[in-house]
This record gives sequence, C-alpha cells and structure tokens, in this order.
Amino acid sequence: MTYCVALKLKAGLIMLSDTRTNAGIDNVSQFTKMFTWQWPDDRAICLMTSGNLSITQSVISLLQDNIDNPKPDIKTLQNAETMYQVAEIVGDAMKYVQGRFGPGIGAAGEDSSASIIISGQRIGGIPRLFLVYTSGNFIETTPDTCFFQIGEHKYGKPILDRVINYDTSIEDGVIAALLSMDSTLRSNLSVGMPLDFAVIRTDTYRFEVKKRIEADDESFHQLSHAWSDALKSGFNQVRGMSVYP
Amino acid sequence: MTYCVALKLKAGLIMLSDTRTNAGIDNVSQFTKMFTWQWPDDRAICLMTSGNLSITQSVISLLQDNIDNPKPDIKTLQNAETMYQVAEIVGDAMKYVQGRFGPGIGAAGEDSSASIIISGQRIGGIPRLFLVYTSGNFIETTPDTCFFQIGEHKYGKPILDRVINYDTSIEDGVIAALLSMDSTLRSNLSVGMPLDFAVIRTDTYRFEVKKRIEADDESFHQLSHAWSDALKSGFNQVRGMSVYP
Repeated sequence: MTYCVALKLKAGLIMLSDTRTNAGIDNVSQFTKMFTWQWPDDRAICLMTSGNLSITQSVISLLQDNIDNPKPDIKTLQNAETMYQVAEIVGDAMKYVQGRFGPGIGAAGEDSSASIIISGQRIGGIPRLFLVYTSGNFIETTPDTCFFQIGEHKYGKPILDRVINYDTSIEDGVIAALLSMDSTLRSNLSVGMPLDFAVIRTDTYRFEVKKRIEADDESFHQLSHAWSDALKSGFNQVRGMSVYP
Repeated sequence: MTYCVALKLKAGLIMLSDTRTNAGIDNVSQFTKMFTWQWPDDRAICLMTSGNLSITQSVISLLQDNIDNPKPDIKTLQNAETMYQVAEIVGDAMKYVQGRFGPGIGAAGEDSSASIIISGQRIGGIPRLFLVYTSGNFIETTPDTCFFQIGEHKYGKPILDRVINYDTSIEDGVIAALLSMDSTLRSNLSVGMPLDFAVIRTDTYRFEVKKRIEADDESFHQLSHAWSDALKSGFNQVRGMSVYP
C-alpha cells in the first residue's frame, strides 16, 4: 500500500510520501511515489501516486516523454499555461493509460485503480493542489479542506483534522504531516520508510526542500519519540478523569 | 458504518460501540450494536456487531430465540460449557444466516459480510475475547494482541497501539477505548453517538458497568476536550523541532 499526504496552506505546499509497494503480502518492494519537476523562476510541480503501480508508472513515463520529446500540439507539464491545465494533462494521461491497460487488468481479476496528487505553482498563478482519480477526473482543495491524502489515509487523518488549517505555518504543517505519517507507519506495515518530502513556498516557483528521509534519519526518530512521549504525557493528563463509571 | 472496540486485559474485558448505521449516505439510523447477557454468578457475555444489519440482527434473534425456547440438543449462550463453545455457537448462527440470505444478497449486488466481537467469562473459565467472521470462523486475542476492532477501525488504532497492553488497568483501558472512539467520531461521519459501553472485571461474571453514553454526556465531552487540549499542547511541545529542512 501507500500513504501520501499533501497540504495546501496559505504559506505554500507540503508533500510527503512513503516508498513501500506490495503485490501481495510476500512481494514488498521500494518505489518512489513522489515525482518533481522544476523550471527555475517559472514553475515547480510535484506528483504523488497511489494504486496500481503499472498504471502510475506508465502515466509518469508518458508525462516525462512528452516533456523530453515535445510536439507542437501536445501540452506538457513544462508548457501548460495554468496548474488547472497541468491537472487536465495528468487526468488525460491517466485516462489514456487506463483505457489501454485497465480492461485487461480487470479481466485478470486485478484492480487497475490509481490516484495522483498534483501540487505546484507557476508564475502568474497561485499554488494549487489537485487529486486525480482513476477516470482522469479531479478535485481541488479549498481553504475549508486544505489537504489531500491517498492510500492508507485513515490512521493519519485524526492528527491533521485537529491541527491543520489554511493559516497553519509551513513549519507546523511539516511537523503535522510527519506525525500523520508516523501514526500510519506504526499502525500499518504496508506503509514503510524511507519517506520523500518536499516543500514549495508560495510565490517562489521552486522546491525549498526536496529530501529523502531515510529509515535511520535522526531528526525523524527524535520527532517520533518526542510525539510518543507527548501523547503518553497527554494520556497521563486525562487518565484520572472520572468517566468510569 | 460502525466502530466497535473490545479490550481483553488481565484485569478484565472492556467493550465500546457506536450506534450509527447507514444504508447509503442518505439513510442513516440508530441501532444498538451491543448485546449483553448476564446470569449472575455464572456468566456474563457481550456481543458487538458490524456489517450487514439484516444478517447481524438475524444472528442475534436466533441466539436469543434458542435461549428463550431451549431445546435439549441445542447449545445456547446460557448453557454453553466454555466461552470457546459460545464462539462456536455464534459462528454457527452466522454460518446458518449467511447460508440462508447471503447468496440472495450477493445476487442483488449487495454485501452480506458481517463480523461479531464476542467477549465474556463463565465460572470455571477465564475471560475470553473472540472475533467471528462472515464465514463463521473466528480468532481469539492473545496477550500480544489484546484488542479487536470491527467497522471503521483505522482512525482509532494509533492511540490503542501506543497505550494499550495486557497489563493496562481497567480504568486506563476505558479511557483509551473512549479516546479511540473520539478520534473515529471526529474523522468519520458514518460513526456516531450515542455509545454503548460495558465492562466485565475478571472473575466477577457480571457487568460492572453497562451504560449508554448519550450525545450530551458531560463526562465524555470533558474527556474529549481534555484530550484535544493535551494533543494540542503535545503538538506545541514538538513543533519547534528542527526536522525542517
């Protein structure tokens, strides 16, 4: 499985993904699920993928191929005029790949469904965050709902529901995303280290951070332990409450 | 949907369930999912149900009918010789009801799957906690894994993973179960108040608590707010950590 989360805050975009994939419980591998493109002073775009790996890899390859071998009548991530157009391009690529392989995958009794989170900003536009579904259709965050999750999203949702809103700072948003991932890693073995992590601050059109957090990352372990301690001390604060009976 | 959680601790058994059911998003109702039987100084048994409501209601009716109209050759929750036999009886009832309605439900494109948590103790035996699946097969907790969840189990798992073990006290276990429910209620609208809550302390063969927690329950609200404050102050403790970048 997978866990990817992206936050669109007033201050910018935060993206975090794990790297574990599995085809059955006994076939576990490591694949990057985060893909980034940056054209300095013009645009920075990040995609995170979940679902059928053959589908999402084909979508990414197709998008990259169109950038590498531009054709006059084909819009690419590099020359799209808006982030909305980027979402359309990714959605169209998803639709094309699903049309090509989806029926065969379904006939074999497998699941071809996939989803892709798109985040980024291009000069002249605002930062935007989209979620593309299996059929190529997509939705966008609003200030009311300022994060998207794909894959094993439930374990890590409570912490986001409690601390994230549109005005949260980038620094706090990063901590919240990492704690959301930490809860998921602890409760579900199909999500695993290392992590890929990226930040695009509003109106900078570049990745301020693009980092792999390895399994032995000292900062992440310290955060994880500190959060564990904070939760335990929080539990100690409420344990004496007289709810029983 | 549903969220039910049961803990088997050295000190006893704790059961907690919500009461919301829905057939589609626009058909939401309130149904008890917790069913208890108590024969003083002999046995106390609690069942919690999840999944297709017509299936689980039929299973409960069948079990109750066999108690009310005993036949010499039919074992019931009242005269089963062990808790293992209770699990067999519930599993057999599930199998019978699935055999009767399952194929028709499946043919109509609906899902007949269901699961039932069984907890209890009878005199001469130890407290036991089982989870019965759609096919009537079942598993039991061990000291390594001392809780079962059914329904929307993912939101409320991280808190249990962090604070519950076999030696946790009843009082702490109750708080942890309520916090697990609180996280689920906040993150998933298909799980809703009121809650049903019960405790069987080891070697007492009776319900020490059997209580409905209503939507306006003052103690539960205080716990929920205190936990929210504790989480926020925990977040404040870790927010300054230098994981970024």
